[in-house]
Amino acid sequence: MRLSRYFLPVLKETPSEAQIVSHRYMLRAGMIKQSSAGIYSWLPLGFKVLRKIEDIIHEEQKRAGHIPMLMPTIQSADLWRESGRYDDYGEEMLRIRDRHDRDMLFTPTAEELITDIFRSHVGSYKDLPLTLYQIQWKFRDEIRPRFGVMRGREFYMKDGYNFDLTKEDALHAYNRHLVSYLRTYERMGLQAIPMRADSGPIGGDDTHEFLVLAETGESEVFYDSQITELKFGDREIDYDSVEQCQAVLEEFTSRYARTDETHDEAVFAEVPEERRRTARGIEVGQIFYFGTKYSEPMGATVVDNEGNKVPVHMGSHGIGVSRLLGAIIEASHDDKGIIWPEGVTPFHCGIVNLKQGDDEADAACEALYKSLTALGLEPLYDDRNERAGGKFATMDLIGLPWRITVGPRGLKNGVVELTSRRTGESEELSPEAAIERIAQIYGLAAKV
Amino acid sequence: MRLSRYFLPVLKETPSEAQIVSHRYMLRAGMIKQSSAGIYSWLPLGFKVLRKIEDIIHEEQKRAGHIPMLMPTIQSADLWRESGRYDDYGEEMLRIRDRHDRDMLFTPTAEELITDIFRSHVGSYKDLPLTLYQIQWKFRDEIRPRFGVMRGREFYMKDGYNFDLTKEDALHAYNRHLVSYLRTYERMGLQAIPMRADSGPIGGDDTHEFLVLAETGESEVFYDSQITELKFGDREIDYDSVEQCQAVLEEFTSRYARTDETHDEAVFAEVPEERRRTARGIEVGQIFYFGTKYSEPMGATVVDNEGNKVPVHMGSHGIGVSRLLGAIIEASHDDKGIIWPEGVTPFHCGIVNLKQGDDEADAACEALYKSLTALGLEPLYDDRNERAGGKFATMDLIGLPWRITVGPRGLKNGVVELTSRRTGESEELSPEAAIERIAQIYGLAAKV
Repeated sequence: MRLSRYFLPVLKETPSEAQIVSHRYMLRAGMIKQSSAGIYSWLPLGFKVLRKIEDIIHEEQKRAGHIPMLMPTIQSADLWRESGRYDDYGEEMLRIRDRHDRDMLFTPTAEELITDIFRSHVGSYKDLPLTLYQIQWKFRDEIRPRFGVMRGREFYMKDGYNFDLTKEDALHAYNRHLVSYLRTYERMGLQAIPMRADSGPIGGDDTHEFLVLAETGESEVFYDSQITELKFGDREIDYDSVEQCQAVLEEFTSRYARTDETHDEAVFAEVPEERRRTARGIEVGQIFYFGTKYSEPMGATVVDNEGNKVPVHMGSHGIGVSRLLGAIIEASHDDKGIIWPEGVTPFHCGIVNLKQGDDEADAACEALYKSLTALGLEPLYDDRNERAGGKFATMDLIGLPWRITVGPRGLKNGVVELTSRRTGESEELSPEAAIERIAQIYGLAAKV
Repeated sequence: MRLSRYFLPVLKETPSEAQIVSHRYMLRAGMIKQSSAGIYSWLPLGFKVLRKIEDIIHEEQKRAGHIPMLMPTIQSADLWRESGRYDDYGEEMLRIRDRHDRDMLFTPTAEELITDIFRSHVGSYKDLPLTLYQIQWKFRDEIRPRFGVMRGREFYMKDGYNFDLTKEDALHAYNRHLVSYLRTYERMGLQAIPMRADSGPIGGDDTHEFLVLAETGESEVFYDSQITELKFGDREIDYDSVEQCQAVLEEFTSRYARTDETHDEAVFAEVPEERRRTARGIEVGQIFYFGTKYSEPMGATVVDNEGNKVPVHMGSHGIGVSRLLGAIIEASHDDKGIIWPEGVTPFHCGIVNLKQGDDEADAACEALYKSLTALGLEPLYDDRNERAGGKFATMDLIGLPWRITVGPRGLKNGVVELTSRRTGESEELSPEAAIERIAQIYGLAAKV
């Protein structure tokens, strides 16, 4: 993308309404614009990151064997009356009356609707196991929305639902979700720690929240420091293997890690003192096993292999997609702006032309732009007629992890400058070598 | 995808509520499920096609230089009061009160919000031209929703908005949209004819609707039969070229083609009688130039190169994304089911194992499945323990354009059967040759 043709309305001043760094930077980098309290438009740069996060989630969910679909945002109140949650949910549910005076609502979650779909179409244990998921807009009418997309009213969420014959099978689905979530967050450059959680309004027995450590986190968390040394990495896993998934669960949840809601001082005291940590965390996901809580009242049953009609065992598993942008920025920034992890960066690298209008510099930038694009990468080429300082400030603010700087002086020596946003370190090298390095960073070595 | 692990709830009986063929087949093929009047869940197969259509639209919009972003579904009534449309829109607008008693609405379109974003961030003619678009859920509280996704209440729509300094520039943006829409529909296997249209509640001077000819269309259309011979094809186009885009507009709109709203019997009479056609059509998109209708009242101005503050010239351009699934099926089906065009088919081909459990047949199917998958294709492998007749009926119903049938008898002669869903013609060939043919059909020849 050429910046002169893009829509990137960066702000010079820090908006006064933004209390936390991710909110400030998302506004300043022209990623979002508030349209009303807790409701945002996703400007092109923000939308691009949102889409990248969504793509990673889809890839990892499909890899785990989960099946994507989509449920509507506006639902009838009837199903929610069946489960009893229409009254329970309180004022956070956005209630709507349509022109025929029917009670509708903007879905805050979808246990009822997915259970209805299941009971309408599935009748035999042979059709299990089944895990369906969606990534869809949700609404919670927060009384005091704040922190930008971190606690908005309209938010984008991945919610998945497993249907299994037995508790044992459902716990395997639970573990499968845990593994796929670990992979998902790591690909986004995040360390998200599974912590034993409280089941809240969804209800359930087994549940873990995934928390990203950050000073601005809303939850207080208590953990054994050993847990931060764990990495899922690029190990192979067979999602059908009960043993393999169970082993990952045990590895990642056997050390103490809890939020303030489930914290137990006595148990925590058993952790060696030098490993006891208290910090703040941002919740970016949650997995639940809740058994027959919805299947029983709503009649979601299957016939088992002995001919008995039994309610299915279910769980629901969520990732806060829009909130993840905030969480990533909270975890990865400096005083100049955002520092995107490579996995979610809106553009793979920036190209800064130090002297727009200089034939040689223009030609070198064009050549870089075309070569990178031909590799399937997306560079952002700052081709505006601006001073170098302004161009650098914009690139630093929007946080592209790599920047190639091109100027007449370097070109005389046959070099451009490659700069890491994270370390600030620069290196002079030929344009070809710079392309090769960028390609390598993004795992394209073979194609160059 | 292995069918035994998929969620494809096909129905044997025709649902009584469905009046038109696309609605019937979408229900029977397990693509959608109604959750309340005019509101649907997109089951996995339906979601897959929806996503393919969305991807094509994104690709063609970006190719035209238009920039993707996303606006929220729930908007404040305030902006709509500024433009005067809050009262004009009538009962089709889903009006909502939030917990603080503020008037909100579920957006049926987004001229107001995009104009607000523009006026907040853009101030100079140097930032023009600019075209922003989104693909987002919309809501229109139709009094009598019907025809499945063709006239639903919650629907998925691409809406794009151009901002230009002059009427001339805005008309170039209009033409650019016309060209990109022609390409978009053709990639979906559709012939969508641009017809002079009525501007309706959006208001505007220049507007064309794109109509797909189909017996079940809601509009009566009148056209010169020459227009159906036009194809955009794979010609190259420079979207920056005013002349090239204008030439396409002239080519595709110079023959008589109008809906009943703008039909003029006298002008139509000038078309040679043997070329005069009356038919029915489904509207799948519309482009508008409406000048300063929103920019003037809402103060969306830029400073021009002489220092004058002038309101920008705008247009809005929509494609009915969810409705397109219905339109494609209306245009492409037979009495056995859907016939997907290759560009939007949910799976590239089906694999039918005639004798599940037979070692050789199973192995041959697995090998085909793996080879096709390795090419980046998505086959749907019917690995269920069902009779051949049932498997064929399912494949015909869900409409995959190509089917590979594998059975012990053929394998003895080293062949499988490749069948075209459209023509019904079958051919015996080696598994390798079948793979090569499928790859070729999807333009992957080079990779085999």
